[in-house]
Amino acid sequence: MSATYVPLTFFSDSVPLSTGKELDILDITDVIRHRVRGSGVREGMAHLFVAGQTVALTTIEFESGAVSDLKNAIRRLAPDDIHYEHNARWGDGNGRSHVRAALVGPDLTVPVLNGELLLGTWQQIALVELDLRGRSRTVHISVIGKSQAPEDTL
Amino acid sequence: MSATYVPLTFFSDSVPLSTGKELDILDITDVIRHRVRGSGVREGMAHLFVAGQTVALTTIEFESGAVSDLKNAIRRLAPDDIHYEHNARWGDGNGRSHVRAALVGPDLTVPVLNGELLLGTWQQIALVELDLRGRSRTVHISVIGKSQAPEDTL
Amino acid sequence: MSATYVPLTFFSDSVPLSTGKELDILDITDVIRHRVRGSGVREGMAHLFVAGQTVALTTIEFESGAVSDLKNAIRRLAPDDIHYEHNARWGDGNGRSHVRAALVGPDLTVPVLNGELLLGTWQQIALVELDLRGRSRTVHISVIGKSQAPEDTL
Repeated sequence: MSATYVPLTFFSDSVPLSTGKELDILDITDVIRHRVRGSGVREGMAHLFVAGQTVALTTIEFESGAVSDLKNAIRRLAPDDIHYEHNARWGDGNGRSHVRAALVGPDLTVPVLNGELLLGTWQQIALVELDLRGRSRTVHISVIGKSQAPEDTL
Repeated sequence: MSATYVPLTFFSDSVPLSTGKELDILDITDVIRHRVRGSGVREGMAHLFVAGQTVALTTIEFESGAVSDLKNAIRRLAPDDIHYEHNARWGDGNGRSHVRAALVGPDLTVPVLNGELLLGTWQQIALVELDLRGRSRTVHISVIGKSQAPEDTL
Repeated sequence: MSATYVPLTFFSDSVPLSTGKELDILDITDVIRHRVRGSGVREGMAHLFVAGQTVALTTIEFESGAVSDLKNAIRRLAPDDIHYEHNARWGDGNGRSHVRAALVGPDLTVPVLNGELLLGTWQQIALVELDLRGRSRTVHISVIGKSQAPEDTL
Protein backbone atom coordinates (compact mmCIF):
# COMPACT_ATOMS: atom_id res chain seq x y z
CA MET A 1 0.00 0.00 0.00
CA SER A 2 2.89 2.36 0.58
CA ALA A 3 3.63 2.57 -3.15
CA THR A 4 0.14 3.88 -3.78
CA TYR A 5 -0.26 5.88 -0.63
CA VAL A 6 -3.27 8.18 -0.74
CA PRO A 7 -3.99 10.52 2.16
CA LEU A 8 -7.32 9.78 3.79
CA THR A 9 -10.10 12.33 3.85
CA PHE A 10 -12.98 12.84 6.25
CA PHE A 11 -16.32 14.39 5.34
CA SER A 12 -19.39 14.95 7.46
CA ASP A 13 -22.81 16.41 6.91
CA SER A 14 -26.32 16.49 8.37
CA VAL A 15 -29.46 15.35 6.61
CA PRO A 16 -32.74 16.79 7.96
CA LEU A 17 -35.84 14.61 7.64
CA SER A 18 -39.43 14.59 8.83
CA THR A 19 -41.51 11.62 9.88
CA GLY A 20 -45.29 11.58 9.91
CA LYS A 21 -46.30 9.21 12.70
CA GLU A 22 -45.22 6.42 15.04
CA LEU A 23 -43.53 3.53 13.24
CA ASP A 24 -43.04 5.44 10.02
CA ILE A 25 -40.09 3.78 8.30
CA LEU A 26 -38.32 6.02 5.78
CA ASP A 27 -36.09 4.81 2.95
CA ILE A 28 -33.14 7.21 3.23
CA THR A 29 -30.85 5.34 0.83
CA ASP A 30 -30.99 7.89 -2.00
CA VAL A 31 -30.17 10.94 0.09
CA ILE A 32 -27.32 9.11 1.81
CA ARG A 33 -25.99 7.88 -1.53
CA HIS A 34 -26.04 11.45 -2.80
CA ARG A 35 -24.02 12.70 0.17
CA VAL A 36 -21.51 9.86 -0.21
CA ARG A 37 -20.96 10.86 -3.85
CA GLY A 38 -20.52 14.48 -2.78
CA SER A 39 -17.91 13.49 -0.21
CA GLY A 40 -15.38 12.58 -2.87
CA VAL A 41 -14.49 9.40 -0.99
CA ARG A 42 -13.97 6.53 -3.42
CA GLU A 43 -13.09 3.72 -1.03
CA GLY A 44 -13.99 3.88 2.64
CA MET A 45 -16.86 3.78 5.09
CA ALA A 46 -20.02 5.81 5.63
CA HIS A 47 -21.17 6.06 9.24
CA LEU A 48 -24.76 7.10 9.91
CA PHE A 49 -26.12 8.22 13.27
CA VAL A 50 -29.47 9.59 14.33
CA ALA A 51 -29.43 11.68 17.50
CA GLY A 52 -32.41 11.32 19.83
CA GLN A 53 -33.66 8.53 22.03
CA THR A 54 -36.88 7.55 20.23
CA VAL A 55 -35.61 6.85 16.71
CA ALA A 56 -33.36 4.22 15.13
CA LEU A 57 -31.53 3.12 11.97
CA THR A 58 -31.35 -0.28 10.30
CA THR A 59 -31.51 -1.87 6.84
CA ILE A 60 -34.52 -3.56 5.26
CA GLU A 61 -35.88 -4.31 1.79
CA PHE A 62 -38.40 -1.54 1.07
CA GLU A 63 -41.17 -3.87 -0.01
CA SER A 64 -44.36 -2.86 1.80
CA GLY A 65 -44.92 -6.35 3.19
CA ALA A 66 -41.44 -6.61 4.71
CA VAL A 67 -41.71 -3.09 6.13
CA SER A 68 -45.05 -3.99 7.72
CA ASP A 69 -43.57 -7.19 9.15
CA LEU A 70 -40.70 -5.18 10.68
CA LYS A 71 -43.18 -2.85 12.38
CA ASN A 72 -44.93 -5.85 13.91
CA ALA A 73 -41.63 -7.29 15.14
CA ILE A 74 -40.75 -3.96 16.79
CA ARG A 75 -44.15 -4.02 18.50
CA ARG A 76 -43.34 -7.47 19.85
CA LEU A 77 -40.00 -6.24 21.27
CA ALA A 78 -41.86 -3.68 23.39
CA PRO A 79 -45.63 -4.14 23.19
CA ASP A 80 -48.00 -1.17 23.18
CA ASP A 81 -50.17 -2.38 26.03
CA ILE A 82 -47.81 -3.46 28.81
CA HIS A 83 -46.74 -1.45 31.85
CA TYR A 84 -43.83 0.98 31.42
CA GLU A 85 -42.14 2.58 34.41
CA HIS A 86 -41.22 5.56 32.25
CA ASN A 87 -44.90 6.25 31.59
CA ALA A 88 -45.83 5.84 35.26
CA ARG A 89 -43.22 8.46 36.22
CA TRP A 90 -43.57 10.97 33.43
CA GLY A 91 -47.01 10.41 32.00
CA ASP A 92 -45.80 10.96 28.45
CA GLY A 93 -46.69 7.53 27.18
CA ASN A 94 -43.57 6.84 25.12
CA GLY A 95 -41.87 4.26 27.34
CA ARG A 96 -42.14 1.76 24.50
CA SER A 97 -40.37 4.24 22.20
CA HIS A 98 -37.30 4.44 24.44
CA VAL A 99 -37.01 0.68 24.75
CA ARG A 100 -37.46 0.03 21.04
CA ALA A 101 -34.83 2.64 20.13
CA ALA A 102 -32.29 1.17 22.55
CA LEU A 103 -32.75 -2.30 21.05
CA VAL A 104 -32.74 -1.39 17.33
CA GLY A 105 -29.91 1.15 17.76
CA PRO A 106 -29.03 4.62 16.46
CA ASP A 107 -26.03 3.84 14.25
CA LEU A 108 -25.09 2.01 11.07
CA THR A 109 -21.86 1.86 9.07
CA VAL A 110 -21.84 0.89 5.38
CA PRO A 111 -18.77 0.35 3.17
CA VAL A 112 -18.07 2.70 0.27
CA LEU A 113 -16.60 1.16 -2.86
CA ASN A 114 -15.95 3.01 -6.14
CA GLY A 115 -17.68 6.02 -4.63
CA GLU A 116 -20.91 4.11 -3.96
CA LEU A 117 -22.56 2.59 -0.90
CA LEU A 118 -21.95 -1.15 -0.89
CA LEU A 119 -25.43 -2.54 -0.17
CA GLY A 120 -27.24 -5.67 -1.29
CA THR A 121 -29.45 -5.31 -4.35
CA TRP A 122 -32.60 -5.14 -2.27
CA GLN A 123 -31.04 -3.72 0.86
CA GLN A 124 -32.02 -0.17 1.78
CA ILE A 125 -31.20 2.11 4.69
CA ALA A 126 -34.16 2.72 6.98
CA LEU A 127 -34.88 5.41 9.54
CA VAL A 128 -37.46 4.12 12.01
CA GLU A 129 -39.59 6.67 13.87
CA LEU A 130 -40.34 5.21 17.27
CA ASP A 131 -41.88 8.19 19.07
CA LEU A 132 -45.66 8.48 19.39
CA ARG A 133 -45.96 11.06 16.59
CA GLY A 134 -44.00 12.32 13.62
CA ARG A 135 -40.96 14.45 14.40
CA SER A 136 -38.11 16.35 12.75
CA ARG A 137 -35.03 14.12 12.67
CA THR A 138 -31.43 14.63 11.63
CA VAL A 139 -29.19 11.90 10.26
CA HIS A 140 -25.52 12.70 10.74
CA ILE A 141 -23.29 11.18 8.05
CA SER A 142 -19.51 10.77 8.32
CA VAL A 143 -17.53 9.42 5.37
CA ILE A 144 -13.89 8.45 5.72
CA GLY A 145 -11.49 6.85 3.27
CA LYS A 146 -9.45 7.34 0.14
CA SER A 147 -10.56 10.12 -2.15
CA GLN A 148 -9.05 8.49 -5.23
CA ALA A 149 -9.30 4.92 -6.40
CA PRO A 150 -5.97 3.08 -5.98
CA GLU A 151 -5.45 2.82 -9.74
CA ASP A 152 -5.67 6.61 -10.10
CA THR A 153 -2.53 7.01 -8.06
CA LEU A 154 -0.18 5.03 -10.23
CA MET B 1 -11.70 19.75 0.87
CA SER B 2 -8.27 19.74 -0.72
CA ALA B 3 -7.78 23.46 -0.02
CA THR B 4 -8.27 22.87 3.67
CA TYR B 5 -6.62 19.48 3.87
CA VAL B 6 -6.01 18.37 7.44
CA PRO B 7 -4.24 15.09 8.15
CA LEU B 8 -6.44 12.68 10.06
CA THR B 9 -5.47 11.45 13.50
CA PHE B 10 -6.31 8.28 15.35
CA PHE B 11 -6.51 7.97 19.11
CA SER B 12 -7.41 4.96 21.25
CA ASP B 13 -7.70 4.26 24.92
CA SER B 14 -9.24 1.85 27.40
CA VAL B 15 -11.73 2.74 30.10
CA PRO B 16 -11.95 0.31 33.03
CA LEU B 17 -15.32 0.00 34.77
CA SER B 18 -16.99 -2.18 37.38
CA THR B 19 -20.57 -3.37 37.46
CA GLY B 20 -22.37 -4.51 40.60
CA LYS B 21 -24.88 -7.12 39.50
CA GLU B 22 -26.81 -8.62 36.59
CA LEU B 23 -28.62 -6.02 34.48
CA ASP B 24 -26.74 -3.10 35.96
CA ILE B 25 -26.87 -0.38 33.32
CA LEU B 26 -24.12 2.22 33.65
CA ASP B 27 -24.19 5.70 32.17
CA ILE B 28 -20.69 5.99 30.68
CA THR B 29 -21.32 9.19 28.71
CA ASP B 30 -19.18 11.46 30.88
CA VAL B 31 -16.06 9.30 30.87
CA ILE B 32 -16.34 8.77 27.11
CA ARG B 33 -16.86 12.51 26.54
CA HIS B 34 -13.73 13.19 28.58
CA ARG B 35 -11.64 10.79 26.47
CA VAL B 36 -13.00 12.29 23.25
CA ARG B 37 -11.92 15.75 24.40
CA GLY B 38 -8.49 14.38 25.29
CA SER B 39 -8.12 12.84 21.83
CA GLY B 40 -7.78 16.23 20.18
CA VAL B 41 -10.17 15.15 17.41
CA ARG B 42 -12.51 18.00 16.52
CA GLU B 43 -14.55 16.39 13.76
CA GLY B 44 -14.77 12.63 13.38
CA MET B 45 -16.15 9.49 14.95
CA ALA B 46 -15.82 7.76 18.31
CA HIS B 47 -16.06 3.97 18.21
CA LEU B 48 -16.81 2.14 21.44
CA PHE B 49 -16.40 -1.58 21.99
CA VAL B 50 -16.72 -3.76 25.06
CA ALA B 51 -14.82 -7.05 24.92
CA GLY B 52 -16.48 -10.07 26.48
CA GLN B 53 -19.49 -12.15 25.59
CA THR B 54 -21.88 -11.25 28.42
CA VAL B 55 -21.96 -7.46 28.19
CA ALA B 56 -23.28 -4.93 25.67
CA LEU B 57 -23.44 -1.25 24.68
CA THR B 58 -26.39 0.87 23.56
CA THR B 59 -27.93 4.32 24.11
CA ILE B 60 -30.85 5.16 26.40
CA GLU B 61 -32.19 8.15 28.33
CA PHE B 62 -30.92 7.70 31.89
CA GLU B 63 -34.27 8.23 33.53
CA SER B 64 -34.84 5.46 36.06
CA GLY B 65 -38.17 4.43 34.53
CA ALA B 66 -36.76 4.05 31.01
CA VAL B 67 -33.75 2.15 32.33
CA SER B 68 -36.06 -0.22 34.22
CA ASP B 69 -38.19 -0.70 31.09
CA LEU B 70 -35.06 -1.58 29.09
CA LYS B 71 -34.12 -4.23 31.64
CA ASN B 72 -37.57 -5.78 31.28
CA ALA B 73 -37.30 -5.77 27.48
CA ILE B 74 -33.93 -7.53 27.68
CA ARG B 75 -35.53 -10.14 29.95
CA ARG B 76 -38.19 -10.70 27.29
CA LEU B 77 -35.52 -11.23 24.59
CA ALA B 78 -34.09 -14.15 26.59
CA PRO B 79 -36.26 -14.99 29.61
CA ASP B 80 -34.72 -16.08 32.90
CA ASP B 81 -36.75 -19.25 33.25
CA ILE B 82 -36.57 -21.05 29.90
CA HIS B 83 -34.25 -23.90 28.91
CA TYR B 84 -30.77 -22.96 27.70
CA GLU B 85 -28.51 -25.51 26.03
CA HIS B 86 -25.48 -23.60 27.28
CA ASN B 87 -26.59 -24.16 30.87
CA ALA B 88 -27.32 -27.83 30.28
CA ARG B 89 -23.78 -28.36 28.92
CA TRP B 90 -21.76 -26.15 31.25
CA GLY B 91 -23.89 -25.74 34.34
CA ASP B 92 -22.88 -22.09 34.73
CA GLY B 93 -26.36 -20.69 34.36
CA ASN B 94 -25.54 -17.73 32.12
CA GLY B 95 -27.02 -18.97 28.85
CA ARG B 96 -29.39 -16.03 28.87
CA SER B 97 -26.40 -13.67 29.25
CA HIS B 98 -24.78 -14.92 26.04
CA VAL B 99 -27.96 -14.60 24.02
CA ARG B 100 -28.80 -11.14 25.31
CA ALA B 101 -25.28 -9.86 24.58
CA ALA B 102 -25.36 -11.20 21.01
CA LEU B 103 -28.67 -9.44 20.34
CA VAL B 104 -27.92 -6.06 21.95
CA GLY B 105 -24.37 -5.97 20.57
CA PRO B 106 -20.89 -4.95 21.79
CA ASP B 107 -20.22 -1.87 19.65
CA LEU B 108 -21.46 1.66 19.09
CA THR B 109 -20.12 4.52 16.98
CA VAL B 110 -21.02 8.16 17.73
CA PRO B 111 -20.10 11.22 15.64
CA VAL B 112 -17.74 13.84 17.04
CA LEU B 113 -18.47 17.48 16.15
CA ASN B 114 -16.58 20.50 17.49
CA GLY B 115 -14.70 18.11 19.77
CA GLU B 116 -17.87 16.81 21.40
CA LEU B 117 -19.93 13.64 21.13
CA LEU B 118 -22.97 14.32 18.96
CA LEU B 119 -25.81 12.82 21.01
CA GLY B 120 -29.43 13.79 21.51
CA THR B 121 -30.18 15.99 24.52
CA TRP B 122 -31.46 13.06 26.55
CA GLN B 123 -29.43 10.36 24.85
CA GLN B 124 -26.73 8.72 26.95
CA ILE B 125 -24.29 5.88 26.33
CA ALA B 126 -25.08 2.76 28.33
CA LEU B 127 -23.00 -0.25 29.29
CA VAL B 128 -25.30 -3.18 30.06
CA GLU B 129 -24.00 -5.89 32.38
CA LEU B 130 -25.59 -9.14 31.24
CA ASP B 131 -23.65 -11.71 33.27
CA LEU B 132 -25.14 -13.15 36.46
CA ARG B 133 -23.05 -10.94 38.75
CA GLY B 134 -21.05 -7.74 38.64
CA ARG B 135 -17.74 -7.86 36.80
CA SER B 136 -14.76 -5.75 35.78
CA ARG B 137 -15.31 -4.46 32.25
CA THR B 138 -13.20 -2.47 29.79
CA VAL B 139 -14.61 -0.15 27.16
CA HIS B 140 -12.19 0.37 24.30
CA ILE B 141 -12.54 3.77 22.63
CA SER B 142 -11.15 4.70 19.21
CA VAL B 143 -11.47 8.25 17.91
CA ILE B 144 -10.63 9.12 14.32
CA GLY B 145 -10.97 12.36 12.41
CA LYS B 146 -9.63 15.85 11.93
CA SER B 147 -7.71 17.29 14.84
CA GLN B 148 -8.50 20.86 13.87
CA ALA B 149 -11.79 22.40 12.83
CA PRO B 150 -11.79 23.24 9.11
CA GLU B 151 -11.80 27.01 9.80
CA ASP B 152 -8.58 26.72 11.80
CA THR B 153 -6.71 25.65 8.70
CA LEU B 154 -7.38 28.68 6.54
CA MET C 1 0.27 12.77 19.18
CA SER C 2 1.81 15.31 16.83
CA ALA C 3 5.31 14.27 17.88
CA THR C 4 4.62 10.73 16.79
CA TYR C 5 2.42 11.48 13.80
CA VAL C 6 1.82 8.44 11.63
CA PRO C 7 -0.24 8.74 8.44
CA LEU C 8 -3.35 6.62 8.57
CA THR C 9 -3.94 3.83 6.11
CA PHE C 10 -7.13 2.28 4.79
CA PHE C 11 -7.44 -1.30 3.59
CA SER C 12 -10.49 -3.16 2.31
CA ASP C 13 -11.19 -6.63 1.07
CA SER C 14 -14.01 -9.10 0.46
CA VAL C 15 -14.33 -12.50 2.06
CA PRO C 16 -16.55 -15.01 0.23
CA LEU C 17 -18.36 -17.59 2.34
CA SER C 18 -21.03 -20.25 1.92
CA THR C 19 -23.75 -21.21 4.35
CA GLY C 20 -25.55 -24.55 4.34
CA LYS C 21 -29.03 -23.89 5.64
CA GLU C 22 -31.31 -21.50 7.53
CA LEU C 23 -29.87 -20.40 10.89
CA ASP C 24 -26.38 -21.65 10.13
CA ILE C 25 -24.08 -19.57 12.30
CA LEU C 26 -20.49 -19.43 11.04
CA ASP C 27 -17.45 -18.54 13.13
CA ILE C 28 -15.61 -16.13 10.81
CA THR C 29 -13.09 -14.89 13.40
CA ASP C 30 -10.05 -16.63 11.90
CA VAL C 31 -10.52 -15.40 8.35
CA ILE C 32 -11.18 -11.86 9.57
CA ARG C 33 -8.11 -12.00 11.84
CA HIS C 34 -6.03 -13.10 8.87
CA ARG C 35 -7.21 -10.17 6.75
CA VAL C 36 -6.56 -7.72 9.60
CA ARG C 37 -2.99 -8.97 9.84
CA GLY C 38 -2.60 -8.61 6.08
CA SER C 39 -3.83 -5.01 6.21
CA GLY C 40 -0.69 -3.83 7.96
CA VAL C 41 -2.79 -1.78 10.39
CA ARG C 42 -1.37 -2.01 13.91
CA GLU C 43 -3.78 0.22 15.78
CA GLY C 44 -7.22 1.03 14.43
CA MET C 45 -10.62 -0.42 13.67
CA ALA C 46 -11.95 -3.26 11.54
CA HIS C 47 -15.42 -2.70 10.11
CA LEU C 48 -17.34 -5.73 8.86
CA PHE C 49 -20.44 -5.61 6.69
CA VAL C 50 -22.48 -8.29 5.00
CA ALA C 51 -24.51 -7.16 2.01
CA GLY C 52 -27.93 -8.71 1.55
CA GLN C 53 -31.17 -8.46 3.43
CA THR C 54 -31.45 -11.96 4.91
CA VAL C 55 -28.12 -12.29 6.73
CA ALA C 56 -26.55 -10.64 9.77
CA LEU C 57 -23.38 -10.27 11.85
CA THR C 58 -22.88 -10.38 15.62
CA THR C 59 -20.55 -11.83 18.25
CA ILE C 60 -21.11 -14.98 20.32
CA GLU C 61 -19.07 -17.59 22.12
CA PHE C 62 -18.81 -20.54 19.72
CA GLU C 63 -19.88 -23.14 22.22
CA SER C 64 -22.57 -25.32 20.65
CA GLY C 65 -25.04 -24.71 23.48
CA ALA C 66 -24.77 -20.92 23.28
CA VAL C 67 -25.03 -21.02 19.49
CA SER C 68 -28.18 -23.15 19.76
CA ASP C 69 -29.63 -20.75 22.34
CA LEU C 70 -28.99 -17.83 20.00
CA LYS C 71 -30.88 -19.60 17.20
CA ASN C 72 -33.85 -20.05 19.51
CA ALA C 73 -33.76 -16.38 20.53
CA ILE C 74 -33.76 -15.34 16.86
CA ARG C 75 -36.78 -17.58 16.31
CA ARG C 76 -38.55 -15.77 19.15
CA LEU C 77 -37.83 -12.37 17.55
CA ALA C 78 -39.70 -13.43 14.42
CA PRO C 79 -41.41 -16.80 14.86
CA ASP C 80 -41.63 -19.31 12.02
CA ASP C 81 -45.37 -19.81 12.20
CA ILE C 82 -46.94 -16.35 12.35
CA HIS C 83 -48.40 -14.33 9.48
CA TYR C 84 -45.96 -12.27 7.37
CA GLU C 85 -47.21 -9.67 4.90
CA HIS C 86 -44.08 -10.22 2.82
CA ASN C 87 -45.04 -13.86 2.33
CA ALA C 88 -48.64 -13.00 1.50
CA ARG C 89 -47.49 -10.62 -1.25
CA TRP C 90 -44.57 -12.53 -2.72
CA GLY C 91 -45.14 -16.13 -1.78
CA ASP C 92 -41.44 -16.71 -1.12
CA GLY C 93 -41.81 -17.59 2.54
CA ASN C 94 -38.85 -15.63 3.90
CA GLY C 95 -40.68 -12.79 5.63
CA ARG C 96 -39.17 -13.94 8.91
CA SER C 97 -35.69 -13.74 7.34
CA HIS C 98 -36.09 -10.06 6.47
CA VAL C 99 -37.32 -9.13 9.93
CA ARG C 100 -34.61 -11.09 11.74
CA ALA C 101 -31.86 -9.52 9.62
CA ALA C 102 -33.14 -5.99 10.25
CA LEU C 103 -33.12 -6.59 14.01
CA VAL C 104 -29.75 -8.35 14.34
CA GLY C 105 -28.05 -6.00 11.86
CA PRO C 106 -25.51 -6.27 9.02
CA ASP C 107 -22.51 -4.49 10.52
CA LEU C 108 -19.96 -4.81 13.30
CA THR C 109 -16.83 -2.82 14.14
CA VAL C 110 -14.03 -4.30 16.25
CA PRO C 111 -10.92 -2.47 17.52
CA VAL C 112 -7.46 -3.46 16.26
CA LEU C 113 -4.61 -3.33 18.76
CA ASN C 114 -1.05 -4.47 18.08
CA GLY C 115 -2.23 -5.75 14.73
CA GLU C 116 -4.85 -8.04 16.26
CA LEU C 117 -8.62 -7.96 16.68
CA LEU C 118 -9.44 -6.90 20.23
CA LEU C 119 -12.07 -9.45 21.26
CA GLY C 120 -12.90 -11.12 24.54
CA THR C 121 -11.24 -14.49 25.18
CA TRP C 122 -14.41 -16.38 24.29
CA GLN C 123 -15.89 -13.80 21.94
CA GLN C 124 -16.06 -14.76 18.29
CA ILE C 125 -17.43 -13.06 15.19
CA ALA C 126 -20.54 -14.76 13.82
CA LEU C 127 -22.22 -14.64 10.43
CA VAL C 128 -25.87 -15.64 10.81
CA GLU C 129 -27.64 -17.06 7.77
CA LEU C 130 -31.28 -16.02 8.02
CA ASP C 131 -32.62 -17.00 4.61
CA LEU C 132 -34.54 -20.26 4.17
CA ARG C 133 -31.60 -22.10 2.66
CA GLY C 134 -27.83 -21.86 2.44
CA ARG C 135 -26.43 -19.13 0.22
CA SER C 136 -23.19 -17.57 -0.99
CA ARG C 137 -22.35 -14.59 1.19
CA THR C 138 -19.66 -11.91 1.09
CA VAL C 139 -18.28 -10.16 4.14
CA HIS C 140 -16.73 -6.81 3.29
CA ILE C 141 -13.91 -5.82 5.61
CA SER C 142 -12.49 -2.31 6.00
CA VAL C 143 -9.50 -1.67 8.25
CA ILE C 144 -8.39 1.86 9.11
CA GLY C 145 -5.72 3.12 11.45
CA LYS C 146 -2.01 3.46 12.04
CA SER C 147 0.21 1.09 10.15
CA GLN C 148 2.99 1.28 12.72
CA ALA C 149 2.77 1.02 16.48
CA PRO C 150 3.40 4.39 18.17
CA GLU C 151 6.71 3.18 19.64
CA ASP C 152 8.05 2.41 16.16
CA THR C 153 7.91 6.07 15.24
CA LEU C 154 10.16 7.43 17.94
